[in-house]
Amino acid sequence: MQKTSFNILRAAHAGLLVTNLEKALEFYTEVLGLELSADGLLANTAHLRTLAVKDACVLSLEEAEMPGVSHIAFRVGSDADLEALELKAVISNRAHYWMTISPYHGRALRIADPNGMPIVFFHEMERDEMLLQQYDKHHGARPMWLDHFNVFVPDVALSERWFCENLGFRTSERLLTSEDNVFAIWLHRKSNVHDIALTNGRGPRVHHIAFWVRDERSILDACDILAACGMHGQIERGPARHGISNAFFVYLRDPDGNRIELFTGDYPIFDPDNPVITWHTDDPQYATFWGTPAPKSWFEEGMLVKGFDGCFITPRKPSIETRPPTSD
Amino acid sequence: MQKTSFNILRAAHAGLLVTNLEKALEFYTEVLGLELSADGLLANTAHLRTLAVKDACVLSLEEAEMPGVSHIAFRVGSDADLEALELKAVISNRAHYWMTISPYHGRALRIADPNGMPIVFFHEMERDEMLLQQYDKHHGARPMWLDHFNVFVPDVALSERWFCENLGFRTSERLLTSEDNVFAIWLHRKSNVHDIALTNGRGPRVHHIAFWVRDERSILDACDILAACGMHGQIERGPARHGISNAFFVYLRDPDGNRIELFTGDYPIFDPDNPVITWHTDDPQYATFWGTPAPKSWFEEGMLVKGFDGCFITPRKPSIETRPPTSD
Amino acid sequence: MQKTSFNILRAAHAGLLVTNLEKALEFYTEVLGLELSADGLLANTAHLRTLAVKDACVLSLEEAEMPGVSHIAFRVGSDADLEALELKAVISNRAHYWMTISPYHGRALRIADPNGMPIVFFHEMERDEMLLQQYDKHHGARPMWLDHFNVFVPDVALSERWFCENLGFRTSERLLTSEDNVFAIWLHRKSNVHDIALTNGRGPRVHHIAFWVRDERSILDACDILAACGMHGQIERGPARHGISNAFFVYLRDPDGNRIELFTGDYPIFDPDNPVITWHTDDPQYATFWGTPAPKSWFEEGMLVKGFDGCFITPRKPSIETRPPTSD
Amino acid sequence: MQKTSFNILRAAHAGLLVTNLEKALEFYTEVLGLELSADGLLANTAHLRTLAVKDACVLSLEEAEMPGVSHIAFRVGSDADLEALELKAVISNRAHYWMTISPYHGRALRIADPNGMPIVFFHEMERDEMLLQQYDKHHGARPMWLDHFNVFVPDVALSERWFCENLGFRTSERLLTSEDNVFAIWLHRKSNVHDIALTNGRGPRVHHIAFWVRDERSILDACDILAACGMHGQIERGPARHGISNAFFVYLRDPDGNRIELFTGDYPIFDPDNPVITWHTDDPQYATFWGTPAPKSWFEEGMLVKGFDGCFITPRKPSIETRPPTSD
Repeated sequence: MQKTSFNILRAAHAGLLVTNLEKALEFYTEVLGLELSADGLLANTAHLRTLAVKDACVLSLEEAEMPGVSHIAFRVGSDADLEALELKAVISNRAHYWMTISPYHGRALRIADPNGMPIVFFHEMERDEMLLQQYDKHHGARPMWLDHFNVFVPDVALSERWFCENLGFRTSERLLTSEDNVFAIWLHRKSNVHDIALTNGRGPRVHHIAFWVRDERSILDACDILAACGMHGQIERGPARHGISNAFFVYLRDPDGNRIELFTGDYPIFDPDNPVITWHTDDPQYATFWGTPAPKSWFEEGMLVKGFDGCFITPRKPSIETRPPTSD
Repeated sequence: MQKTSFNILRAAHAGLLVTNLEKALEFYTEVLGLELSADGLLANTAHLRTLAVKDACVLSLEEAEMPGVSHIAFRVGSDADLEALELKAVISNRAHYWMTISPYHGRALRIADPNGMPIVFFHEMERDEMLLQQYDKHHGARPMWLDHFNVFVPDVALSERWFCENLGFRTSERLLTSEDNVFAIWLHRKSNVHDIALTNGRGPRVHHIAFWVRDERSILDACDILAACGMHGQIERGPARHGISNAFFVYLRDPDGNRIELFTGDYPIFDPDNPVITWHTDDPQYATFWGTPAPKSWFEEGMLVKGFDGCFITPRKPSIETRPPTSD
Repeated sequence: MQKTSFNILRAAHAGLLVTNLEKALEFYTEVLGLELSADGLLANTAHLRTLAVKDACVLSLEEAEMPGVSHIAFRVGSDADLEALELKAVISNRAHYWMTISPYHGRALRIADPNGMPIVFFHEMERDEMLLQQYDKHHGARPMWLDHFNVFVPDVALSERWFCENLGFRTSERLLTSEDNVFAIWLHRKSNVHDIALTNGRGPRVHHIAFWVRDERSILDACDILAACGMHGQIERGPARHGISNAFFVYLRDPDGNRIELFTGDYPIFDPDNPVITWHTDDPQYATFWGTPAPKSWFEEGMLVKGFDGCFITPRKPSIETRPPTSD
Repeated sequence: MQKTSFNILRAAHAGLLVTNLEKALEFYTEVLGLELSADGLLANTAHLRTLAVKDACVLSLEEAEMPGVSHIAFRVGSDADLEALELKAVISNRAHYWMTISPYHGRALRIADPNGMPIVFFHEMERDEMLLQQYDKHHGARPMWLDHFNVFVPDVALSERWFCENLGFRTSERLLTSEDNVFAIWLHRKSNVHDIALTNGRGPRVHHIAFWVRDERSILDACDILAACGMHGQIERGPARHGISNAFFVYLRDPDGNRIELFTGDYPIFDPDNPVITWHTDDPQYATFWGTPAPKSWFEEGMLVKGFDGCFITPRKPSIETRPPTSD
């Protein structure tokens, strides 16, 4: 089985479940600054785009009884890549099926990773004119692109092997416990630190979905706008800088508790042979370069993910037990 | 007569004449980010406020047949200060009269300076809740306060004496010709570089009205928004940094050609005995710290000012002839 | 006795005690970006200046056995103002004496406020060329000016009366308990939110000394530099935004634990009749506009202040007992 | 001949000729903020690196009698890619030879493009620890990485075909004359707007070498530092925003007149099928989104490039005659 028989491009689309679409839209459009896609507002779903890519839709919100994640999806280079992925799933005897993720996307293939985390791949998508120079429309946090997913899985090392050996992902940074077990990994296909990060934890669950923003001011603006609207309770962690990835970040909870990261300041990885950076969990700067620990909720809470049967997947206990220091 | 028998606080209000109120409002509210005052939109006038002061109104736009300036006004510390100013005008045999500048302001006294430039003073004004923490409303260049006026006068030294000796203004910076004649002066009452600057030129005319903005990004944002709206022709000079005052600036022309400066990065002057900084016109860095000269229009064009009879005052030739280097 | 018989200009100088001058200087010059004054490095003292004022010295560090504050000082408008202050101290039967605060300053008068907090006043001082446009020297947090002092006192209302009625300070913002007792006040002479803030607490002690910086980036830079040097443990609180004053802040502890605030984003107060803004302690946004509480240390720890006998003043219990929510 | 028989990664190294190494280093290290490579300072050459990549060296300066460019170089994915490139050069009967570009790089292959512009490819290079989190060393414009080269060639369409059809470059933006002739193109291999841009002009000459910086402030800082050092004459154009690529830029001339761009604010191109954006020369916003034209020098002056014989290549007349509007 060849590593390079298909070309995964990047993290490209997410589907979120929200219990109140109107309230969710206020958060995602007015505060975060995502723009409605053309014909993006439907009865119980809304489709949104960002400023610096031409994708007609990068985030879909669906009104549902429970919040959570319907899918996280990667774009591949061609339709043939999808078929190669399907063949690989068949050969590996790995659960998979074809689905539709939005009206803006062609057929999509869902495959379960070895931890049971469903990963979706698509190629065809609608494009629209880039909003980057329509500065009169920019507002909120001015999100440039959907950058990556962060996922809790019970066994990080197992998924890392699958993503790297089977899907051609590359590790950019790696976090080890004091016993040198893999606690978390940052994997990328596009040219920056990650398209997906996998963290040891009760899973599969999605920890957060991240948008890249233009500068630190955009992140401070998001906090100020939330505070002005009495929504400062949605700020869970930060703003601060991560040691890993160097990202200047803030973690927000949408009105349903779904977790969104806004960040900037990571670094590009242009070279396939870029050396991996390794951190250890006993260095507090890995988490926050400036030292402050994250709150307990940040380590413990995550978003449930829809399984193949349309029900939420029941998370399993992580392989590594931990009690990281928290701020509360 | 004592210098300190009255207390002028600061540049506080301007009245501008525009030929198309709707187009002007698009520029002042959507691009510059001024907010409409409470009940601020009337038949042929509009009243506007800024984000970091409680003044209910700092700029009034009046639809008229010709663009220009109806008045520039300073706030004084008390109503008694107005009476002391009137007495001084009577004693000095200086033309003056009482007027109304907006529905948000009490009686105002207009006095002609020795160059014939009408200066208005008021004390009473309405206040409104500060918008500084209503971040969800901030947009455009996010103007914090009306900061200063810049005025062309035929004889700068004459006006400097009047402002400093009679009105208690202090000089912060001074620009001399190679023959050590006063070419321009920066005068202040509030604690920064200027409330009014006087420049040698055909006058009296108003060169520009300046708003202080929060940071350099706000100025770049204004340019980007103008460009996105196809209004980049309104950018006359900059963004760049002045040597004098250290201001990071951009000069814009409103749809009628009235000139507005947005700036940040000047310095505070807390001490009445702060030493004056002196520049010479043969040092190109006085104008632009980074070296680029201003365009010819910036040196030659200005806004006509309404006189006591309601007609525009006819400007007179300046006392110093100059041909500064220009970029065009 | 007239309120306006003297003119206090601003918070202008502080003397700090450090146990290791070399380590302290690394913190104050390399990280904070203060510049050594001319001839500022002596055997066991160092004198420092900031970028946007001409004061030859705004902070003096003295090597001592215990950290703490030797004095906080305000500049007055003239030497006659000092004499008027002395007369007022004599009439009020208030402890006072003349002292020297640095080689750059003329005689200084120290008066105890009603809570026993020593306040120093001076007029004469040396100036040096402003560093604002010597951008090649700017580094660290690029501190623009010493802005204010924050002091713990047992009885805030008592000191507020003295500062306002006797010294001509004005209240900009006020924090009340749910029973409407004065918990903290922000008082100013110069044209921004404060020159001194008084907070209910074990005192007299100095809570922090604050420097105004140019923008949010300067504060993030300070954190990044501290973290790069392994000194992230010196970051006590923030970066975040205060509700009161709107300041974007970070609180740092120098190597001896003396507390320094870096901030920007407050607002100007140009008018003596500017309305006071009132907050209540049950609104968590007063402390952090974005909601996060401060750590316990921030509420409990403070710097001891040298008394008239050269010994540290023993702090007394505050009049209001509180247990504010903390992050730890 | 297969398009994908080799993998060019990115613009990765440049060699510049300077007449005074000491003066050049002051410009490149103190103002631009490049760091000396380990053992980077030799008798008549200096080697420099940037902050956000691990490359031990991205720019080499060599003292010479005349300023200019010794080479521009791209990194390829493997040594086998170099051999495939050599084979292609042999088959195409295209001049080429093996060379050494710095002590930090393995063997390099130089091939002349159809306009005679020498392009260098290498794979092996030394890496060093990334400086991104060594914030205490960051200064000047804080350059993150060498981003792209901009080259004058007589026939842009000819080179575009070679780069795209033979080397696998992709066009991101394209500038056409009013007769729809290709005036300039932006080509990329890494995931942003360009690794190389080709502009119609007397050539082959190098127009500029560009470094990506973290934010707009870094560009303003560079201007302020230059101005503070009396080197403001080195600022040739900007700061302003390009329409094409959306870059916020400044163009500087080193002490020898070699042209360097600092920029930020372009956009990522993650997808190989990303649609090309087309501009026309009669839209002034292509050049400066804010409208201001470039000075004449920017259109006319360029850096001579060393040919295969070690002498500068004599530039030839461009295929399209133009007189773009200039600011002077």
